Amino acid sequence: MTDKAIVLSSGGIDSTTAMAIAKSRGNQIYALSFKYGQRHSVEIEASKKVVKSLGATVHKIIDIDLRQFGGSALTDDMNVPKHESLDDIHKNEIPITYVPARNTIFLSYAMAWAEVLKATSIYIGVTAVDYSGYPDCRPEFIAAFEKMANLATKTGVTKETQLKIETPLINLSKAQIIQAGIALGVDYSLTISCYDPDEKSRSCGRCDSCLHRIKGFKQAHIKDPTPYYLSKSASL
Amino acid sequence: MTDKAIVLSSGGIDSTTAMAIAKSRGNQIYALSFKYGQRHSVEIEASKKVVKSLGATVHKIIDIDLRQFGGSALTDDMNVPKHESLDDIHKNEIPITYVPARNTIFLSYAMAWAEVLKATSIYIGVTAVDYSGYPDCRPEFIAAFEKMANLATKTGVTKETQLKIETPLINLSKAQIIQAGIALGVDYSLTISCYDPDEKSRSCGRCDSCLHRIKGFKQAHIKDPTPYYLSKSASL
Repeated sequence: MTDKAIVLSSGGIDSTTAMAIAKSRGNQIYALSFKYGQRHSVEIEASKKVVKSLGATVHKIIDIDLRQFGGSALTDDMNVPKHESLDDIHKNEIPITYVPARNTIFLSYAMAWAEVLKATSIYIGVTAVDYSGYPDCRPEFIAAFEKMANLATKTGVTKETQLKIETPLINLSKAQIIQAGIALGVDYSLTISCYDPDEKSRSCGRCDSCLHRIKGFKQAHIKDPTPYYLSKSASL
Repeated sequence: MTDKAIVLSSGGIDSTTAMAIAKSRGNQIYALSFKYGQRHSVEIEASKKVVKSLGATVHKIIDIDLRQFGGSALTDDMNVPKHESLDDIHKNEIPITYVPARNTIFLSYAMAWAEVLKATSIYIGVTAVDYSGYPDCRPEFIAAFEKMANLATKTGVTKETQLKIETPLINLSKAQIIQAGIALGVDYSLTISCYDPDEKSRSCGRCDSCLHRIKGFKQAHIKDPTPYYLSKSASL
């Protein structure tokens, strides 16, 4: 019997690569995306294309309103910061694009679905290397979530199935992630990373997430298929 | 400065008593309820009355659709089991009224709100004594969640504020909970516990939750203010 894996899908590079890896390991893919009041709803359109291209069994899109709580440039009416280069970003500071408890809420829903489906794993494309310093992307968070999940659920109690939170990208740089995806046939032109895309779904090229994407393609020596509406910084 | 506490409110005896305790400890109360596709939406009406009676600062009601995943008699089109007495309920079995990952999802939202408000605690009225055997009511689950929460959040990283998950009822029987609430002036006629209330908001008197409620009032020697639409079992 094929194992069922829930894969969190945002339509970006990381979650798409994580999905391709889950598939390459022989899992049946149950994709899960969220509309969480994010200003960049083109994410959802990208995730639909990605999920289709990777042949997921089901794609659920859950509507949750994190704007009710506020506290982030991604859900509130704040400007997404633009930078000339990654060096401009203050290290050791959590950026205002951080959405409180986002990954915890996403993983909690995934856990509910995993329990009903008897899925044995949840894939999440977090990385502790080229990332934006979000606390809920760190390995110690993932380990603590997994432990909690196996205490929270029926299957965790009966020990029938232990749920595993799979983070295949956790130790990879953005360039390595892109290389891994290309090797598995991922079409990155379907993905979007930008925190502030324009009405034509073009990326800004200057937010944290775009800067990591641009640097990743450059270091991987792979042509970046992304259309940008701001000119690329010379410093990258 | 008064500490802010998020209190999960279902409109039942336990969460109402937990709220009264949070208030008695001098906290400013931020009440959080969920419409989660439960068949017993009279819960929400009860929670509104309770929150008003206890003078919470804000009451947020979040709409989340756990029916998308299914797997529970409380959200699906399954019958809620009726019993003659608590002895009829199979011990060591997780009942079909269990909603997958419910407390994890509720606590994750509470964690998001706590982070934005800089609240220092989340109160949840779980009890490991007279309960229905749900895995996510056990002390080890709560401890694991608290640990995870403090790794997941900005405040957990900066160590500004550690978040505490408060479970003041965890070691109390239903009778002791009711006695504690009465001592704090709780009006239990505002609360509802039934998994299967009728259209007049009357309780069935025979589901797990009603049986625990009836037994609790009886053992506490306090008159049960609840209207029941099925006759009470003689065995209680």
